Amino acid sequence: MWRRLSELAEIGKQGSGGVTRLSYTEEERAAKDLVASYMEEAGLAVREDAVGNLFGRREGRDSDAPAVLIGSHVDSVYDGGNFDGPLGVLSGIEVAQTLEEEGVETDHPVEVVAFTDEEGARFSFGMIGSRALAGSLSPEELEYEDANGISIAAAMRAYGLDPGRIEEAARPQNTLAAYVELHIEQGRVLENEGLSAGVVTGIAAPVWRRLVFTGETGHAGTTPMGMRHDALAAAAEVMALIENEVSGTGSSVGTVGQLGVEPGGINVIPGRVEISLDLRDIDEATRDRLEDRILTRVREICEKRSVGFEAEVLQRMVPVSCSERVRGAVRTACEGLGLRPYDLASGAAHDGMQLVGSCPIGMIFVRSKDGISHNPKEWSSHDDCEAGCNVLYRTVRDLAGQR
Amino acid sequence: MWRRLSELAEIGKQGSGGVTRLSYTEEERAAKDLVASYMEEAGLAVREDAVGNLFGRREGRDSDAPAVLIGSHVDSVYDGGNFDGPLGVLSGIEVAQTLEEEGVETDHPVEVVAFTDEEGARFSFGMIGSRALAGSLSPEELEYEDANGISIAAAMRAYGLDPGRIEEAARPQNTLAAYVELHIEQGRVLENEGLSAGVVTGIAAPVWRRLVFTGETGHAGTTPMGMRHDALAAAAEVMALIENEVSGTGSSVGTVGQLGVEPGGINVIPGRVEISLDLRDIDEATRDRLEDRILTRVREICEKRSVGFEAEVLQRMVPVSCSERVRGAVRTACEGLGLRPYDLASGAAHDGMQLVGSCPIGMIFVRSKDGISHNPKEWSSHDDCEAGCNVLYRTVRDLAGQR
Repeated sequence: MWRRLSELAEIGKQGSGGVTRLSYTEEERAAKDLVASYMEEAGLAVREDAVGNLFGRREGRDSDAPAVLIGSHVDSVYDGGNFDGPLGVLSGIEVAQTLEEEGVETDHPVEVVAFTDEEGARFSFGMIGSRALAGSLSPEELEYEDANGISIAAAMRAYGLDPGRIEEAARPQNTLAAYVELHIEQGRVLENEGLSAGVVTGIAAPVWRRLVFTGETGHAGTTPMGMRHDALAAAAEVMALIENEVSGTGSSVGTVGQLGVEPGGINVIPGRVEISLDLRDIDEATRDRLEDRILTRVREICEKRSVGFEAEVLQRMVPVSCSERVRGAVRTACEGLGLRPYDLASGAAHDGMQLVGSCPIGMIFVRSKDGISHNPKEWSSHDDCEAGCNVLYRTVRDLAGQR
Repeated sequence: MWRRLSELAEIGKQGSGGVTRLSYTEEERAAKDLVASYMEEAGLAVREDAVGNLFGRREGRDSDAPAVLIGSHVDSVYDGGNFDGPLGVLSGIEVAQTLEEEGVETDHPVEVVAFTDEEGARFSFGMIGSRALAGSLSPEELEYEDANGISIAAAMRAYGLDPGRIEEAARPQNTLAAYVELHIEQGRVLENEGLSAGVVTGIAAPVWRRLVFTGETGHAGTTPMGMRHDALAAAAEVMALIENEVSGTGSSVGTVGQLGVEPGGINVIPGRVEISLDLRDIDEATRDRLEDRILTRVREICEKRSVGFEAEVLQRMVPVSCSERVRGAVRTACEGLGLRPYDLASGAAHDGMQLVGSCPIGMIFVRSKDGISHNPKEWSSHDDCEAGCNVLYRTVRDLAGQR
């Protein structure tokens, strides 16, 4: 698994040492092809579905029994790290390969998945593959566009997929027994506790918005400060407000990760600015109250400046709890390996959120060095990855009914 | 002239009704070709110099006498207006054509010029043509790059010019008698005074800087607010500071017109942000004190946030005074037309700034509707443009020694 992690890190590698693998690109294609070859080495039956999700299946005693699904994704953010996603996919293959090598028979089939576009880096709309699997991806959502104006549907077509057939990717009810994902923590809780791995209790949910400020362009030299309607100055005041309001909660996080300014001349007062807003909390009500408070204040700021303001919702997700059955299996697995079972929440969103209506879900976290993620410096040690993989192995044997 | 203004406005026309004509592009080429045809219609001898400046010359009694140079530029900012630049070039041609039609002989030759890249929209470095004419454009400056990484030198080569020969564009000493430019005011002073045209006393000078903030990227969901080094949050605080400090002076103006954010994912904390800063005042000392005050406070902000900061100077220009000789000629011209001669300063930079070492310079301003410029809504009425053109005509007859 460790060797495969290094091999996969070569695809989409950046000068920084990080990777950029956006969905429906040559890089993601190459990554899935490499993962498919690993699945074949592991003796799995490989297939891809209508949205590009890659599966490797190992039959159980009963082919008609619902499958235990394990995995993650191989797409990345811009200049991201080598563990976020790949660890879950490659540990899943490792688990299946070990079951095969040890001749273990399970009641349920075990499937390993590499989901399409978990991160949302390309279209500002993530978890495309898991949404499709859950049957909740709508044709309207396929119209979201990337920075070059290419829609998800157009990107799918260019990739050789038919966006008219996404329904075929939906997994029928009662065909999944559970979904378990091994993932890096991306925070510092396990590091502070001195633990290799932990039991995820639930997943915090982001709301993603696009805020648009419409001011008035003008000459930078001849428009007195008092006569300006500067869209970027308004956005700057808003960004300062967001940072301040979010910090005040103590629990929430808020991020402006994208900003576009028009017309963009060095001596032209900006007339239009777009910013993104990612706002999240483990508690939905806290997050939504914060959002309301921010938007009310933003409207006041823009009114004061005579700058137009619109706020579009890109997506609004609901925090989810992990199933007691899966949490119990992960806890037992930890105990069996002599690891203290430690409960923690996920601040980041994951594909499992989309699958809560399909089957019991759960996650296992692996310690992240310095809590750094979405960054070339993202790192989890060989020993911690191994420990996480062992927890996953025991969890899968439990959930898949190994006798 | 009015018809020619409309024709020229078709080149590089945007959906907004404004124009985008960047230097060394097909649009600028087409605009210069059209202007060259107007020069020929006016009976002028047309040539282009080594940096792409376009000239139309009308001989005087003494071909060796220094020429009176009149004109402006035909490049624009992104989505700019139809008067900033073209009015000066086309009124210059109108003046020369009228001299020709009326059979007026002048002592000095009269030359009309369309300078290359006054605005600086493409390379964040303007007045390229007038710098070359003054002999002050250095080979190092030709390495400035546009948003696509194309240098001025590379753009010149693609345009058919040899950047190694820019020295040939330098005008020898004592070959220019004066430089006069008719331009829209781009402010509201003449409108408030109820005047068609005014006498420019001097030109405020901008300093252009690029400020770079280097923070640390990280996952938007898992990095607590207190552990962030968000480059965009730092830039937002800085932009609010700039607006506040500049507004406090009462006379200066300051603009952030460009902002780039990396890596640019909706769920990634920004690690690097670049902003531009255009800071200007009619008084150099006031401007430079303001700049120092801002940079000191920016360093404090970045230190507090543990965010790296660098501030590069893109250009630093010195405010200039218009020559008494030219101002006197413009004043007399206004009086002769029954216009109250009204003195005002230019908040915007103009090519004349580059020529103060070459010859006496001066400018005539025409009233701008609502003071709007660098915007598709930029407008000066037919009557005001005509009045300005008449002032220019009388000024040129005076300066060129018509008997």
